[in-house]
Amino acid sequence: MNCDTFAAGERLVSPAYVRQSCEARRSHEHLVLQLLEKGKCPEDGWDESTLELFLHELAVMDSNNFLGNCGVGEREGRVASALVARRHYRLIHGIGRSGDISAVQPKAAGSSLLNKITNSLLLDIIKLAGVPTVASCFVVPVATGMSLTLCFLTLRHQRPKAKYIIWPRIDQKSCFKSMITAGFEPVVIENVLEGDELRTDLKAVEAKVQELGPDSILCIHSTTSCFAPRVPDRLEELAVICANYGIPHVVNNAYGVQSSKCMHLIQQEMFSYLSNQLKKLSEANYERLLQTPHNPISLALTLKTLDVHHDKGVTQLGAMLFTRHVSGTTVVPLGLVQTVSGHTFRGFMSHTNAYPCAYLNAAATIGMKTQDVDLFIKRLDKCLKTIRKEQNKESVPGVDNYDKTENVDIEETALKLDNVLLDTCQDSSS
Amino acid sequence: MNCDTFAAGERLVSPAYVRQSCEARRSHEHLVLQLLEKGKCPEDGWDESTLELFLHELAVMDSNNFLGNCGVGEREGRVASALVARRHYRLIHGIGRSGDISAVQPKAAGSSLLNKITNSLLLDIIKLAGVPTVASCFVVPVATGMSLTLCFLTLRHQRPKAKYIIWPRIDQKSCFKSMITAGFEPVVIENVLEGDELRTDLKAVEAKVQELGPDSILCIHSTTSCFAPRVPDRLEELAVICANYGIPHVVNNAYGVQSSKCMHLIQQEMFSYLSNQLKKLSEANYERLLQTPHNPISLALTLKTLDVHHDKGVTQLGAMLFTRHVSGTTVVPLGLVQTVSGHTFRGFMSHTNAYPCAYLNAAATIGMKTQDVDLFIKRLDKCLKTIRKEQNKESVPGVDNYDKTENVDIEETALKLDNVLLDTCQDSSS
Amino acid sequence: MNCDTFAAGERLVSPAYVRQSCEARRSHEHLVLQLLEKGKCPEDGWDESTLELFLHELAVMDSNNFLGNCGVGEREGRVASALVARRHYRLIHGIGRSGDISAVQPKAAGSSLLNKITNSLLLDIIKLAGVPTVASCFVVPVATGMSLTLCFLTLRHQRPKAKYIIWPRIDQKSCFKSMITAGFEPVVIENVLEGDELRTDLKAVEAKVQELGPDSILCIHSTTSCFAPRVPDRLEELAVICANYGIPHVVNNAYGVQSSKCMHLIQQEMFSYLSNQLKKLSEANYERLLQTPHNPISLALTLKTLDVHHDKGVTQLGAMLFTRHVSGTTVVPLGLVQTVSGHTFRGFMSHTNAYPCAYLNAAATIGMKTQDVDLFIKRLDKCLKTIRKEQNKESVPGVDNYDKTENVDIEETALKLDNVLLDTCQDSSS
Amino acid sequence: MNCDTFAAGERLVSPAYVRQSCEARRSHEHLVLQLLEKGKCPEDGWDESTLELFLHELAVMDSNNFLGNCGVGEREGRVASALVARRHYRLIHGIGRSGDISAVQPKAAGSSLLNKITNSLLLDIIKLAGVPTVASCFVVPVATGMSLTLCFLTLRHQRPKAKYIIWPRIDQKSCFKSMITAGFEPVVIENVLEGDELRTDLKAVEAKVQELGPDSILCIHSTTSCFAPRVPDRLEELAVICANYGIPHVVNNAYGVQSSKCMHLIQQEMFSYLSNQLKKLSEANYERLLQTPHNPISLALTLKTLDVHHDKGVTQLGAMLFTRHVSGTTVVPLGLVQTVSGHTFRGFMSHTNAYPCAYLNAAATIGMKTQDVDLFIKRLDKCLKTIRKEQNKESVPGVDNYDKTENVDIEETALKLDNVLLDTCQDSSS
Repeated sequence: MNCDTFAAGERLVSPAYVRQSCEARRSHEHLVLQLLEKGKCPEDGWDESTLELFLHELAVMDSNNFLGNCGVGEREGRVASALVARRHYRLIHGIGRSGDISAVQPKAAGSSLLNKITNSLLLDIIKLAGVPTVASCFVVPVATGMSLTLCFLTLRHQRPKAKYIIWPRIDQKSCFKSMITAGFEPVVIENVLEGDELRTDLKAVEAKVQELGPDSILCIHSTTSCFAPRVPDRLEELAVICANYGIPHVVNNAYGVQSSKCMHLIQQEMFSYLSNQLKKLSEANYERLLQTPHNPISLALTLKTLDVHHDKGVTQLGAMLFTRHVSGTTVVPLGLVQTVSGHTFRGFMSHTNAYPCAYLNAAATIGMKTQDVDLFIKRLDKCLKTIRKEQNKESVPGVDNYDKTENVDIEETALKLDNVLLDTCQDSSS
Repeated sequence: MNCDTFAAGERLVSPAYVRQSCEARRSHEHLVLQLLEKGKCPEDGWDESTLELFLHELAVMDSNNFLGNCGVGEREGRVASALVARRHYRLIHGIGRSGDISAVQPKAAGSSLLNKITNSLLLDIIKLAGVPTVASCFVVPVATGMSLTLCFLTLRHQRPKAKYIIWPRIDQKSCFKSMITAGFEPVVIENVLEGDELRTDLKAVEAKVQELGPDSILCIHSTTSCFAPRVPDRLEELAVICANYGIPHVVNNAYGVQSSKCMHLIQQEMFSYLSNQLKKLSEANYERLLQTPHNPISLALTLKTLDVHHDKGVTQLGAMLFTRHVSGTTVVPLGLVQTVSGHTFRGFMSHTNAYPCAYLNAAATIGMKTQDVDLFIKRLDKCLKTIRKEQNKESVPGVDNYDKTENVDIEETALKLDNVLLDTCQDSSS
Repeated sequence: MNCDTFAAGERLVSPAYVRQSCEARRSHEHLVLQLLEKGKCPEDGWDESTLELFLHELAVMDSNNFLGNCGVGEREGRVASALVARRHYRLIHGIGRSGDISAVQPKAAGSSLLNKITNSLLLDIIKLAGVPTVASCFVVPVATGMSLTLCFLTLRHQRPKAKYIIWPRIDQKSCFKSMITAGFEPVVIENVLEGDELRTDLKAVEAKVQELGPDSILCIHSTTSCFAPRVPDRLEELAVICANYGIPHVVNNAYGVQSSKCMHLIQQEMFSYLSNQLKKLSEANYERLLQTPHNPISLALTLKTLDVHHDKGVTQLGAMLFTRHVSGTTVVPLGLVQTVSGHTFRGFMSHTNAYPCAYLNAAATIGMKTQDVDLFIKRLDKCLKTIRKEQNKESVPGVDNYDKTENVDIEETALKLDNVLLDTCQDSSS
Repeated sequence: MNCDTFAAGERLVSPAYVRQSCEARRSHEHLVLQLLEKGKCPEDGWDESTLELFLHELAVMDSNNFLGNCGVGEREGRVASALVARRHYRLIHGIGRSGDISAVQPKAAGSSLLNKITNSLLLDIIKLAGVPTVASCFVVPVATGMSLTLCFLTLRHQRPKAKYIIWPRIDQKSCFKSMITAGFEPVVIENVLEGDELRTDLKAVEAKVQELGPDSILCIHSTTSCFAPRVPDRLEELAVICANYGIPHVVNNAYGVQSSKCMHLIQQEMFSYLSNQLKKLSEANYERLLQTPHNPISLALTLKTLDVHHDKGVTQLGAMLFTRHVSGTTVVPLGLVQTVSGHTFRGFMSHTNAYPCAYLNAAATIGMKTQDVDLFIKRLDKCLKTIRKEQNKESVPGVDNYDKTENVDIEETALKLDNVLLDTCQDSSS
């Protein structure tokens, strides 16, 4: 609509009020105009009334919402279910064109405009997050592994003789599979233990480059974001090696945008809080918080006591946390062996063949609150005490007379489920 | 938004496509403009995309959706729950003003406009439905009884000496209570039986007017819509009496708009179908469809066989239909006595002291389909046969080898519920 | 659904996960169960996932959502528009029964249950708000005026000889009309000025009772909630008079629940803040905050300077606030005369024939924030200075070099609209 | 919820009604149970009340909707915008696990279950559509080109020596790019003209296989669905060649499922109707409907008259149809040259170097109605006459006195836009 349309309403509710409304309406339009002109994230988030108005306006720009449209193609934004139409705000038509996903679709100007704005906002966000030199980007529904595969396939055209990819080990299946899928042979470089931390073995990387010869290497494939005690790869030193030998450097920066300087500042306080609370808990339970200063997001807590007394303790802890609705932690036992696409990894999940002890991971993320940390610490503490008590067949202070403010239902239910879940404990996260 | 706003999008998706979209958008605006100018029902119903666009546009006209609004009153359209805001399309502010429900509310121009349009559309619908002389109307959430009370209160100012309301009996509690609530004494005129039909006793009405004296009578209160075998009151003859004695005539036309000539034509076919099917069923079950040609919507089927053989048969039928998911029928037994606001009605529900037999009502309404009738007939037939079988302790053809296409679950479930519900059977409708 | 149903999903996603989910689901069910059993407001508000699950569950309890339902009544919850069905969560069937709005509707068990719970929650809220003796209540869409009319109509049955209602004046049309609509003659008792406050004239009330005779009086009709400088009626003293003469006491407590002790505590801080800020502003503008300690919600600021210098100043202020998106204030000029249902009120809006000066009202309400007050004070201050400047044709400090952080658009737009709105200024609130 | 929960409501609305509702509720549950057990499309589509109930139930199975959940991972289904949560029915958590997209995600049992059911339903649909031997499938957001690339990458592991892909030409960019992206060299086999149809050149295919040697060939890449006058590739003969030489056969069956036998039967009537109407129109306009019996969906109409008289006629027709809201047609001019990933295609869009004439495509698709065809024919006829008139500068019967029932606005608007759009005409579809 526009103010002319609503002028027809003046007869019914007085010109003054309609005019006042039209002026007020312009503040919504002004936000839209700024978005379209600048293509940047607004300082203040839009409220839902502006958002929905904008989405409805975009929808009527698409041909499937033209009144009296006549569609004789194979792709006309027809939808059988009103429920589906509605939850997409009637933005139903596909965008892009055959062979060019970023092309404007003439039959869907609204959806295409939304797509362009989305890409523009993402570019703005990446810059804000600390990568000011990025020139262009676009959003597609492709996960980490496929993105990497596409990068490798693109490099193939430049380096037709290359067969290998040099890869400092990180125990994430999709990263490994991405190289196999693209048709290359991953060359795994084991990490080295420095204090508690697992870090990139730069000498091993350079030695391997010399052994295989630069031309046979497609790229070095490094990783920025990982669970403690592994820390981000030594990007700058790897970049020097790449430059010296003329090899491309592909950096898997998944989750990395959110761990950049910018984000880090926002979260610093929370990260300290989680770190301090975990430290206290570890000491009270005869364990230790691993010292991993190079990992800005993730923390790890040793599980030595469980490990020593009882074989199944670590697994049991994972199951117990899961049934007590603690999600997102990972327990890493010792000595798992896993074969992925034909390659056998010893000590799988720990990024190294033999880490000194079993441990548990937790991470501080955007949106986490102090209460979340407190709840986590409380439940974890109780689980640790319960397991130790069972192992020792003797009383552990603080278990029986536990704080009753915790929801009793969760605990009771959890006890019932514990046995069922023993088998699935390693799976309590991903 | 308007086309100027979206011109800012031309840079992103080409001027030609944006312009095409803006033109297409005008067809939505054109519908809105016509609605605002004419205030009449559109020939073709709007599709949801136009409807929702319009509602969102109206919402941003209300002050609670002004960006940067500053509200310091006691009524500012504040809502705690996003769920509530959303389901009202953010049209949250009240309308009307103290003491004048139809006044425009300056802080809610959008809601006020919607209110005015609603009233305008209703006026159009009433005219289309066959009342072309109606001059004005408005929608308020007030049911039949309260509407009548308000009419009587309004008449009081014109007729300060009046104490009585003359009322041809109809067994609907709210009609009776409306007179009591307004502070008047209802004078009940019993209906007369003509064939199967219960009709207005005009002589009794006139006699009562003469007996009480016109000045002591507030109005004659008649009814157009009722269940067979009662038929609509003789409006024209009553109007003559009113005119002769100078007494107002208040016609309770609830449901009447939908039974006017206009509606009648639309439904005639369905009504015949229901009538014919009920006739067949009644004959097959040794019952009779009551002849009530003056009632254009509702039909009644005698329940003599149930009545004769077994006292509880009628009640049981009501319960059985209810548990078999047949809703909207009413079974009317003989001899109910009910006291409403101090007045005792004999033969309550049947509109007369002693109707010759028990019966069952069904009605043909807008939106009913042939399949609905078929399903109803099938289930009713089965219920009747089942009851007779139980009563006679002998086989009734067609019960045991019943058509198995009917959902078996409903039948089984219903059998379980039957006993529970015997007490509530009269309530199976309203 | 229930856990048995989802057991069928164990084949697809593992028994452990389905069981975990079912346990988690019980916490939602537990909330529902508590609500149904206790019928009280939960300590913590439900989140939307629980709310919507509950509403969907209720909806499938109504017959219009039974799969295979067969409806042959005139009221079957049929809806033409999917949009309407959706926004009502498919709770479309009516509730209550003819003549008894609070009866359970057998065809709509879900909607009836929701209705019962709603009434139960409201009862809990009223008790929490400070009326612990209330025994029962129900929610109906009836505004203040109609509620009062219904109260008067109910009293009529007890006091058939009564003609008059004693009414300490409050300038709200609906209150006055409610007495007229019910067929009674309002006897207006003018308020007395005590300091800045307008208070109930108890002597005049009692004198009038004696003059007319108790039997001819239906009730005394008092009011708890009003705009300063009028304050709530002297309820306790009026109650004594009523008891002495055997006259009912009808208290219009609209908005009163929210101004009870309980609410008052919550808001006290905010009320002080608004009061202090208005005080500062009034002094800076050569005006005065009226001293109205008996009015716990509303405040009034004199407008003497506008009044003296220029006749239209007060009206202009109302218009200016409206166009600057300040809603909820009321400007009260001197000497308005208004006739309502045949009775002429001098000094209308001010609750008295001749209040000493014009003034502006503002109120502190639930949901108001400190920022709202600041924004209000800023805009009001600017309006006052602008008008004085125009009137004096001389510079007023602080207008020209005003704080530029205020949205410039609003000001510019407002200037354009000011003239258009001069006529509608008294209407800037209600 | 379950019936036990609602038993708590019996106190409020009577046990009989709650029990009736619970029984009715089971019919919804029964549908869910059947879906979970059989994993097949239900005979009758579910109504929205069942659908939404099911989705809400699934949502509360995911850990992000557990009340009291404690998430300390990097992926916890946190969402900043309520609008986003809502439109996803709060199914916000990711599914799959690192490196295995089809794995069950323990933290999202509901979403995982929905995913499994989706895949199961798709499998059922593919079987119904005429491919009974398909064993497994899953839904991922990957378009045609990427799907083909992944197929080629998978085959690479089996045929490490292969460099080439044999590809009967089809002018669709994404098909061609898919081979380049996977790192292979496409060998284009030109089609042969048989009557009006363009068909696979089987001899050229076999000759090329022999020339390059089977081991150097990754696969033959054929296509089932295309625009007339190209027809689907000769799949059976190609399959014989593949078998003889031991070469894999990759069939691009995009849109093919809907053109299978099953679908064909459904649509046959509509296809005949479109075909007949286009035939009449072509004769009335001195053009010809191309005879393409092997293409079961798409039709082509010669544009010789436009081509002969005026160079720009064909392009103009595309633009005119676009501005008149006819979407989905493609106009194919002669002699376009286009370079895709380094390969130059002559006669691009026509699947051959030099088709005898320009033409226009239209397709019959699921959901198309007779009225759609009529509207298309009407608008196309008018466009053709208008262009011829302009070209001939002489009157063409039927243009000036055209049927006025057509929406005049569309025509007027379209005239304004025509010039703007001349440049974009080839883009009027995709």
